[in-house]
Amino acid sequence: MKNFLSAEARGLAPYTPGEQPRDQQYIKLNTNESPFPPSLKVVKALSRAELLKLNLYSDPACTQLNAAIAAHYGLHPANVISGNGSDEILAFAFRAFCGAGQPVAYADVTYSFYQSQAALFGLEAKVIPLREDFTLNVDDYMDFPGAIVIANPNAPTGMAVPRQDIQRLLEANPDRVVIVDEAYVDFGGESCVPMIFRYDNLLVTQTMSKSRQLAGGRVGFALGGEALIEALNRVKYSFNPYNINRLSLIAGTAAMEDDAYFQSCCETVRKNRAWLVEELEGLGFAVLPSSANFVFARCGRLPGGELYRRLKESGILVRWFDRERVRDFVRITVGSMEQIGALVDELARMLEEL
Amino acid sequence: MKNFLSAEARGLAPYTPGEQPRDQQYIKLNTNESPFPPSLKVVKALSRAELLKLNLYSDPACTQLNAAIAAHYGLHPANVISGNGSDEILAFAFRAFCGAGQPVAYADVTYSFYQSQAALFGLEAKVIPLREDFTLNVDDYMDFPGAIVIANPNAPTGMAVPRQDIQRLLEANPDRVVIVDEAYVDFGGESCVPMIFRYDNLLVTQTMSKSRQLAGGRVGFALGGEALIEALNRVKYSFNPYNINRLSLIAGTAAMEDDAYFQSCCETVRKNRAWLVEELEGLGFAVLPSSANFVFARCGRLPGGELYRRLKESGILVRWFDRERVRDFVRITVGSMEQIGALVDELARMLEEL
Repeated sequence: MKNFLSAEARGLAPYTPGEQPRDQQYIKLNTNESPFPPSLKVVKALSRAELLKLNLYSDPACTQLNAAIAAHYGLHPANVISGNGSDEILAFAFRAFCGAGQPVAYADVTYSFYQSQAALFGLEAKVIPLREDFTLNVDDYMDFPGAIVIANPNAPTGMAVPRQDIQRLLEANPDRVVIVDEAYVDFGGESCVPMIFRYDNLLVTQTMSKSRQLAGGRVGFALGGEALIEALNRVKYSFNPYNINRLSLIAGTAAMEDDAYFQSCCETVRKNRAWLVEELEGLGFAVLPSSANFVFARCGRLPGGELYRRLKESGILVRWFDRERVRDFVRITVGSMEQIGALVDELARMLEEL
Repeated sequence: MKNFLSAEARGLAPYTPGEQPRDQQYIKLNTNESPFPPSLKVVKALSRAELLKLNLYSDPACTQLNAAIAAHYGLHPANVISGNGSDEILAFAFRAFCGAGQPVAYADVTYSFYQSQAALFGLEAKVIPLREDFTLNVDDYMDFPGAIVIANPNAPTGMAVPRQDIQRLLEANPDRVVIVDEAYVDFGGESCVPMIFRYDNLLVTQTMSKSRQLAGGRVGFALGGEALIEALNRVKYSFNPYNINRLSLIAGTAAMEDDAYFQSCCETVRKNRAWLVEELEGLGFAVLPSSANFVFARCGRLPGGELYRRLKESGILVRWFDRERVRDFVRITVGSMEQIGALVDELARMLEEL
C-alpha cells in the first residue's frame, strides 16, 4: 500500500481513547463519564421544534452558550470560547501559543493527549517528571521559556496542585501562557478561574463531559483574558468556524444553567468517592489522594494489567495504562453506588480466590 | 494588550462565515442551507431515550454512521471517515497529505476556507487562477507536485468540472493526492466516488449540510482508499478522537438512510434553481451555469455590494464576496419557492426604481 502521508503526519502520536465497547453491556468505569443522566432541563430544551431546525447552521459565535458560561463564572462573554469538547480547545491553544521556537512543557504522567497534540503541530515538547509520589513540583517549570500545560486535578492520578503553585508559575514569567486543564476541578480541586482578571497569561480549560453529564454532547470551553480568547478564536475560525452543532449548543446552555443539578451530582460523586476509597483501602489497595471523579489505585497482589483483564472478564471496565511508572495502577471512575458496589464485591471475590 | 500569539498563529487567515443574524428574521439565502427541515426519520431517531444517554461518550469510531454512509455508496466502512462537518475533514486532509516540502494547490476563485486551513498548518499554497469564464483548466495542475484541492461543483461559482478532467489529474501523477470537495455534488455535479477503487490517490469529501438538511448537525465525511482514510484517522486521533457527538451520529445515520427524502429534496432544489435562473435572466442578470444549490449572478445595473446591502435592508440575505474577480456578483442560495419568489419580487421592484 502506498504511503501518502506528509512527513508531519508520519510524526503523529495518535491518542488511544478508552474502550467504548459495543458488543455487550459492561459496568463502565473506564472513561470518567458521569453515572447520572443529563439535567432534565437539557432534555426539555432539546425540543422537537429545535430538532426541526437542524437544516440551519449553528451560531458560529456560540453566543448563548458563551453567555451562560460567562454568567455562571461572573465573567464577560469575551472571556469565553467554547469547543467541540475541551480536546478541541486544547488543540486550538497548542496552535495559538506554541510553534517553532515556542515549545510546550507538561508532566510525564498526565493526560496523554497533550503529547498527541504537540505532535500534531510539530512542537518541541519538554516532558517534566512528577516527583516520586506523583506530586508536581512547580519549581521544575520556573525557568521553562514556553507554554506550560497542567491538568489540575491531574489525570490519571486524580491529584491536585494548590492554586498558589500555579500563581507562582504565572508570576514567574508573565509573557508565558500557562494552560490549566480543569476537566476534573468540580470534584474537589481549587479552580484558577478567579485569577483570570489578575493574570492575562492564564488560560483555564474545562469540559461538560464530567461534572455536567454531557460527554456525549461534546462541549468544552476555555476561560481567560480577552487577548488569549481572541487568539483561540483566530485558530477556531481557521479550522472550523461552526465547531459546535445546534443541539450541543442548546444542551450546553441548559446544563450550565441548571446549577442545582450540577451541584448535587458533584456532591454525590464526592460521597461515592469517599466510600470507594475506604473500601479499596480495606481490600489492601493503595489509592492516590483523588480530587477527581476517579481514583488511581494499586492492588499490590495483582499487576494492573492483570486486574484490568480479570475485571473485564467479569463485565467491569476500568482503565489501565501500559506505561512506565503507572503500570501497577488501574484508574477507576467513581460511578453510581450500584456500579462501584458491584466493583468492590467483584474485587473482594477476586482477591479471596488468589 | 500583550500578544501571546505564536508566529504560526500570527500568520493565520481566519475564515469569515456567512452572517447568522440573531437580531431579526431574514429570508436567509446566504449560507446554502437546505430550505427543508431534516428528515422526519432524523427527528424520530433523536428520541428521549437517546437524549438521556448524553452523559456517555459518543462512539469515537462512528461505527453506525460510517456503515450507513458506506452502504449508501456501496463502499466498505474502511473507505469512510466522518467529521464535525466537512471543514474538519478538510483540515485533517491538509495535515495528513501536506507539510514542509509538500505544498497544496487550489483555484483563485473557490471555497476560501482552503486558504485558512493552509495557513493553519503553515503550508506553501499555490493559487491557480480559473479561466476568464471561471472554468477550471486541469492542464494548469498537471505538473504541480503537491496535493490538489478542487471544489466540484465549485463555490461560489456553482460550476462543475467534468469527471474526466479529474481522472486525468489522478492519472498524471499517482503519488499525488487529489481532494475533490463534493459539498454540492448532489445538486447536479458528476461525483468522483465511483472512481475510488480505481485511484488510490483520490479523496472525495462530502457534507450533510446541503443536500441532507443537517447544516446544524455538523456532519461531513470523506470517501477514499483505505490508505488515505487511515491517514485521516491518524490526524483525527491526534486532534479530537470523539469528534462527533452522540446526537449528530444518530441524525447523520438516519439522514443517510432516508434516501427517498434526500432524492426528493434534491429534485425540488433543482426545479427551484431552474425557475430562479430563468427569472434572474429575465431581470437582466448574468447567471453562471450552476450545478449547486445556489447561483452566482451579476446584475450589471447594480454592483454586487450595493445589491447585497439593498436586499439586506429589505430583509433578504444573500452572500457577497468583496474580492477580486467576483465583486460584481452575489451568491444566492436556492431556497424554497416562497423564499426565492420573494427575492425575485424584491429584485424586480428594486430594478424598476433605478
